[in-house]
Amino acid sequence: MTPTSAAPEAFITLDATLAHWQAHRRLTRRTIDAFPEDQLFTFSLGGMRSFGDLALEILGMAVPTARGILTDDWSAFTMPTSGAKGDLLRAWDESTPELATIWTQIPAARFHETMTAFGQYTMAGHDLVLYVIDNEIHHRGQGYVYLRALGIEPPPFYDRS
Amino acid sequence: MTPTSAAPEAFITLDATLAHWQAHRRLTRRTIDAFPEDQLFTFSLGGMRSFGDLALEILGMAVPTARGILTDDWSAFTMPTSGAKGDLLRAWDESTPELATIWTQIPAARFHETMTAFGQYTMAGHDLVLYVIDNEIHHRGQGYVYLRALGIEPPPFYDRS
Repeated sequence: MTPTSAAPEAFITLDATLAHWQAHRRLTRRTIDAFPEDQLFTFSLGGMRSFGDLALEILGMAVPTARGILTDDWSAFTMPTSGAKGDLLRAWDESTPELATIWTQIPAARFHETMTAFGQYTMAGHDLVLYVIDNEIHHRGQGYVYLRALGIEPPPFYDRS
Repeated sequence: MTPTSAAPEAFITLDATLAHWQAHRRLTRRTIDAFPEDQLFTFSLGGMRSFGDLALEILGMAVPTARGILTDDWSAFTMPTSGAKGDLLRAWDESTPELATIWTQIPAARFHETMTAFGQYTMAGHDLVLYVIDNEIHHRGQGYVYLRALGIEPPPFYDRS
């Protein structure tokens, strides 16, 4: 998709999209933190992965995708392998300013270009970003079921503060 | 938020956003359809609602939110009360072209205005739409856990055809 000379009909701006994403990431962080340490990487339902493993996947997609959109370097992220909640939360917190720094350098036109991410996902830049955000929401929703099944009230979905 | 005279830095256009939403709605439809008729409105985990009830909520938010953004008429949707899968899928299919018809009439500037939806949710138009889409992804992810717990393979998350 090539940007036209006319102003594109913006549904949402770049700044608002980053704010939206970071708001979701705050909620996901609270969801990780709501798990007891001894359940985060062990509890699951229906033969699925633990929420800790899902959170590692979410963490492993965010910065590398934004960096790839900026630089076209699609080298894969090396996921932290520790099964400790504190390590996961620390890695999460480190990725938050990193994502913001990368995002603000991405020219708007990149989101409207078609690119191949990680050697296999060919789509527009905005669809890549939405895929990563949607994947986070999808798996976090699964974490909510795990928490409920453990008798723990998940953080409110609407609170992104 | 007031649109400026400069072209806004568009992350995504209106057309692409509708395409993205409808793609998610196709996946949610397949998720509804994957449930056995006798489990759709009865099965749940952790004391949560059935996926049929979650799907009714998702259905009940889409068109009324788009209509409200277009018209500022925030009258609530009357949710279908039937617990039959066929009725839910029919209502879902009716809402698909309705959503498209409404969406294409919404001026881009509306998505950048702050409004109060249904008398209580005050945010920018784009954030309202994203809330509705995100709520759909969140609850559909929960439906995936229900399906897995029932021994049923959910539809692939990446397939939005």
